Amino acid sequence: MRIAISTGGGDAPGLNAVIRAATLSALERGWSVMGIKRGYAGLLGEDEVIPLTRESVRGIGHLGGTILRTTNRGNPFSFPVQQADGSWREIDRSDEILENARNLGIEALISIGGDGSLAIAQRLVDKGMRIVGVPKTIDNDVAGTVTTFGFDTAVATAIEAIDKLQTTAESHDRVLVLEVMGREAGFIALHSGVAGSADVVLIPEIAWKLEHVCEAVMERDRRGRKFAIVVVAEGAKDEGGHVSLIGDSLPGQAPRIGGVAHNLAKAIQAKTGKECRAMVLGHLQRGGMPTGYDRLLATRFGGAAAQAVADGKWGHMVALQTPHIVTVPIREAIREPRRVDPSHDIVQTARRTGISFGDR
Amino acid sequence: MRIAISTGGGDAPGLNAVIRAATLSALERGWSVMGIKRGYAGLLGEDEVIPLTRESVRGIGHLGGTILRTTNRGNPFSFPVQQADGSWREIDRSDEILENARNLGIEALISIGGDGSLAIAQRLVDKGMRIVGVPKTIDNDVAGTVTTFGFDTAVATAIEAIDKLQTTAESHDRVLVLEVMGREAGFIALHSGVAGSADVVLIPEIAWKLEHVCEAVMERDRRGRKFAIVVVAEGAKDEGGHVSLIGDSLPGQAPRIGGVAHNLAKAIQAKTGKECRAMVLGHLQRGGMPTGYDRLLATRFGGAAAQAVADGKWGHMVALQTPHIVTVPIREAIREPRRVDPSHDIVQTARRTGISFGDR
Amino acid sequence: MRIAISTGGGDAPGLNAVIRAATLSALERGWSVMGIKRGYAGLLGEDEVIPLTRESVRGIGHLGGTILRTTNRGNPFSFPVQQADGSWREIDRSDEILENARNLGIEALISIGGDGSLAIAQRLVDKGMRIVGVPKTIDNDVAGTVTTFGFDTAVATAIEAIDKLQTTAESHDRVLVLEVMGREAGFIALHSGVAGSADVVLIPEIAWKLEHVCEAVMERDRRGRKFAIVVVAEGAKDEGGHVSLIGDSLPGQAPRIGGVAHNLAKAIQAKTGKECRAMVLGHLQRGGMPTGYDRLLATRFGGAAAQAVADGKWGHMVALQTPHIVTVPIREAIREPRRVDPSHDIVQTARRTGISFGDR
Amino acid sequence: MRIAISTGGGDAPGLNAVIRAATLSALERGWSVMGIKRGYAGLLGEDEVIPLTRESVRGIGHLGGTILRTTNRGNPFSFPVQQADGSWREIDRSDEILENARNLGIEALISIGGDGSLAIAQRLVDKGMRIVGVPKTIDNDVAGTVTTFGFDTAVATAIEAIDKLQTTAESHDRVLVLEVMGREAGFIALHSGVAGSADVVLIPEIAWKLEHVCEAVMERDRRGRKFAIVVVAEGAKDEGGHVSLIGDSLPGQAPRIGGVAHNLAKAIQAKTGKECRAMVLGHLQRGGMPTGYDRLLATRFGGAAAQAVADGKWGHMVALQTPHIVTVPIREAIREPRRVDPSHDIVQTARRTGISFGDR
Repeated sequence: MRIAISTGGGDAPGLNAVIRAATLSALERGWSVMGIKRGYAGLLGEDEVIPLTRESVRGIGHLGGTILRTTNRGNPFSFPVQQADGSWREIDRSDEILENARNLGIEALISIGGDGSLAIAQRLVDKGMRIVGVPKTIDNDVAGTVTTFGFDTAVATAIEAIDKLQTTAESHDRVLVLEVMGREAGFIALHSGVAGSADVVLIPEIAWKLEHVCEAVMERDRRGRKFAIVVVAEGAKDEGGHVSLIGDSLPGQAPRIGGVAHNLAKAIQAKTGKECRAMVLGHLQRGGMPTGYDRLLATRFGGAAAQAVADGKWGHMVALQTPHIVTVPIREAIREPRRVDPSHDIVQTARRTGISFGDR
Repeated sequence: MRIAISTGGGDAPGLNAVIRAATLSALERGWSVMGIKRGYAGLLGEDEVIPLTRESVRGIGHLGGTILRTTNRGNPFSFPVQQADGSWREIDRSDEILENARNLGIEALISIGGDGSLAIAQRLVDKGMRIVGVPKTIDNDVAGTVTTFGFDTAVATAIEAIDKLQTTAESHDRVLVLEVMGREAGFIALHSGVAGSADVVLIPEIAWKLEHVCEAVMERDRRGRKFAIVVVAEGAKDEGGHVSLIGDSLPGQAPRIGGVAHNLAKAIQAKTGKECRAMVLGHLQRGGMPTGYDRLLATRFGGAAAQAVADGKWGHMVALQTPHIVTVPIREAIREPRRVDPSHDIVQTARRTGISFGDR
Repeated sequence: MRIAISTGGGDAPGLNAVIRAATLSALERGWSVMGIKRGYAGLLGEDEVIPLTRESVRGIGHLGGTILRTTNRGNPFSFPVQQADGSWREIDRSDEILENARNLGIEALISIGGDGSLAIAQRLVDKGMRIVGVPKTIDNDVAGTVTTFGFDTAVATAIEAIDKLQTTAESHDRVLVLEVMGREAGFIALHSGVAGSADVVLIPEIAWKLEHVCEAVMERDRRGRKFAIVVVAEGAKDEGGHVSLIGDSLPGQAPRIGGVAHNLAKAIQAKTGKECRAMVLGHLQRGGMPTGYDRLLATRFGGAAAQAVADGKWGHMVALQTPHIVTVPIREAIREPRRVDPSHDIVQTARRTGISFGDR
Repeated sequence: MRIAISTGGGDAPGLNAVIRAATLSALERGWSVMGIKRGYAGLLGEDEVIPLTRESVRGIGHLGGTILRTTNRGNPFSFPVQQADGSWREIDRSDEILENARNLGIEALISIGGDGSLAIAQRLVDKGMRIVGVPKTIDNDVAGTVTTFGFDTAVATAIEAIDKLQTTAESHDRVLVLEVMGREAGFIALHSGVAGSADVVLIPEIAWKLEHVCEAVMERDRRGRKFAIVVVAEGAKDEGGHVSLIGDSLPGQAPRIGGVAHNLAKAIQAKTGKECRAMVLGHLQRGGMPTGYDRLLATRFGGAAAQAVADGKWGHMVALQTPHIVTVPIREAIREPRRVDPSHDIVQTARRTGISFGDR
């Protein structure tokens, strides 16, 4: 049997550990393994398809990034193609995927990606391709699995930042606003904020008002705690609309300058008179060596994906349902995204220990 | 209401985060909180009982150790007392615990400890004391909860050691044997060995033979991989008996010199002719700053313990049943310890990716 | 003898280790020690003066920040005072400093601070106050000493960020622009860029042009290296003026949004067509636990400062002149700031190993 | 021109950064570069000689170990050769080195190694070989240079261990004895002990007595500090002879079990009655990613070595004479090893801050 592996969407710490474990597990079964470069680009003639051997996956388990590279673009069902007149049009190139896979002798594909990539995988399965999915999301917003690799590392990076900002905030009596990833789901902000003993945590799932945030800061001030740490998810919704967001840039446009953090810092400073500073953690959360937790989980996912191929679980993705790795239909898993439940014990404990969510 | 908190058994990263969250959650309810020093010693007049305030738990969430100190000794049901003739006798001082708690106005106790401490807690509950437990074990061997705080940190420390040893083993063509904690349960060795891409993992739950270990080392050698990393749990059973263990010292006796790692290194070197070195990770695994995962879990446990007190869940301990914190009867939780299941997916994937467990 | 210690200017990792070592060294000599809060504020009645004991400096050697807090404001020679009409005026309150120090029985002061604080210290010495200085600068721009504490930590933080950005840049074929501290001196950018194997390093001391930067990026691209890491000091001068800087905010004004990094990323993207992202490391560089190097150096500075007090070295600061700690006159040390010498071996080796400085 | 690079002696973090910088600097000059495997083994037909290209040194700057591998054996002037009767004899194979180098067209060699390797290099220079040295020593015991790469990393690893042991020692009221590298020179113990706020530091250069160590521990105990951290260099001399050392194993013999740490822990426990534990840091100090400091220094050394080759500085080694990299004659540099000077400011400050060296 010949299988292939691809990685799509934003990179996440642990991708290489998935590739390594899936490759070794496949080779051990006597299969051969191909690596498709840059999402589906390798199957569209836009990039390479390379053999994956013991040597090519040696010593990559602890490395960030992905040896197969990745991209946020290039959905084969609506692939951007430049026209003769210079304009862009999207065309369906999915048939090419199937044909090229067939020509390369690829009998099954392990597709590692977020909900976007998984949705594409499902459509390819519907066209007859044999695909097993591996969920990947920094934000932890893919349902059907308790968590995915990369999230623990992103949280660890955010906590490390909070720890560092605590000391400088306290030394200078400042309010420090830290923006972390999470456009729709506030898990990184919630987990890092609680573990890092932040004072205010703002997430998309709990609508907040600037006045409550400022009140929390001033309440601390009155108790002699002259500094504060505010952790805000990039997509946290400001109910009152006092803090407008500068949106992220679109592909092909200028890179992003600042975001909710800078606006929020300005707004808190204006309202409380306290010296405020903002910090956007950005790409640091995606990069670097995965934590031990993520290295193990990614390895398990990789091994389980090869097992799912052996079992013919097409259209399924591997998932953690503690303490086991199972397979779940991709269709079900991506039906509804995972969001923070405001009644979850983490939120409740956070409130009891004095963290404000800006909602009261 | 006045409650108390105590920590018993070997220390584990995250204890302070439990103390902090439990204390803040209790204070927020309007209760007062006492801290009992060194397990039950503070309730036996052998150490202090101190008030726990917002100030006393400030900034401790990320610190290793326990501000309440701890001990592996002093079971109140069989407390060692020196006699007039110099000999030692064990007496039951459990009534003193209840009496002193009553005198101090302590209405409920949050007891943080391993299966030993939890068993004591259960016996005190049987005598009428109102206790809620919080499970603590580096080795992850307490059943009833998916995991406990401290384990993730210990695994991370072991992985970091494996990473460091990899580079020096490879540079020198050596076999490096790393001994990690785990007398009865091999979770630390298994998780760190798989995440760290070790070559051989030896755990108490899978009986191994020296010849299989050496064969795995030589098989690598033949493939041009001149070095190897062997991770061994301190309690890993050698089926053939070729590697005898130097037992750990008893209390009051001389500290431990070496253990399974050094004997194993000697045995492999003798049998394979390869240069071998041993490293005992020891107390490094207990110490230091908890990982983000453990800081969050410990905080959740602390908050949930206060909630369990509010709910009157005497004789219960908090537990992680992903994704929720629940309470389970201590009696049930400690009935059977948790052990590595050799058929678990982690073991299966480990074998597929080339890790030997020394059993074949 | 009674001495006092104060910390001024932006915080730097290692301040607490200086305070600890100076305090313990003073107490060991039988002196008593006072801590002045927030620069000179404690001596102006604007903040506290507290006793420093063994207990107050226990366990602080590895902590970031400063237990004495600090501030960038409050020069006693031009102290901002609000008038009855609401406007601000600066007055000379230096006499109060001397008077209050006298009233508190303070016979000598150890002033830890950057060139601003040291210049103030010198003026107070000129008025008869007995002061020993300890140089503090994240940017490493104080002359007279080979280096100061805090710099190694800031460089380590920057390198860690580069390592993380490398993996995500490579996975996505992106150009990542990392902005680090350094308004006048490019040491952090240079040291972290070389140690972290960046591709372009832009510093204030070497005038660069956007076209050279883009050429370096495209040259890599042509060699098949589709990504690049650009490290830029916040004060790096753009010779061609194509990348205008958004200046830092003044006190009392809105916090800073972006800076050279975002503009540079935009400019490179526009010129090369490559996907670019920017990251401002900001306050992360100031915060957190000092490296071992900085903990040792700060401890040595603290001990040497107490020795300098014992020796009556008023108007001198401690300094590293490898391998010894010496004292140098503050006046001489601050006469000319330290800058990167473009002919230094680090720059030469950087060029040889392929790093572009954007100047050719 | 064709040059070669070799690494000899125990591995040290930073070797790969030296190799990378030297290779890139040579290639940039238009030279070709060969890598000799395992010290001189590659030039004796016992291992390979490989080409070093841009690709072979890509991304290795932050990796521990050495891509050229290394060995503590195989001095070409007294090379162990097994006789027909099974016994071993040492023969002079140095002429083979020169001949093979000539045959391979190697015109100059950059030899990276400790004093042993440097002494061999000098003898080869005396025979007409063109060699430039790069000093490598974990222990920092090579004179002629202020410091070498690898030392800062080893100290950082030791400090991290001290930090971890502090928390568990304090929680359990224990004495923890940490053994670090340093057979003749106590720099690692001294620097890590002072930076890590140890209580006792024992080094080869300051003769200590067990009674003074125990007195320091008990003095702390009387002040209410029930725990203590003792850092001991593996070669620390016990003046009274109460703590005998178990020597390290010789090549070909059984690996080492324990050492000064375990004996010292036993002795302190016997004398003070306090619970003591020992930890041998061992190979962890050699392994893993170099610190930023070491990455920069190693890169500078590599670049300077290529420059020294260009300048024809045969028989010289590169050296740090802050703030410059210079070249010094190997003969002078290795004449006298570097040792801790007991009157150095680090020792003086350590004493003032309460650290005992066991000598009084």
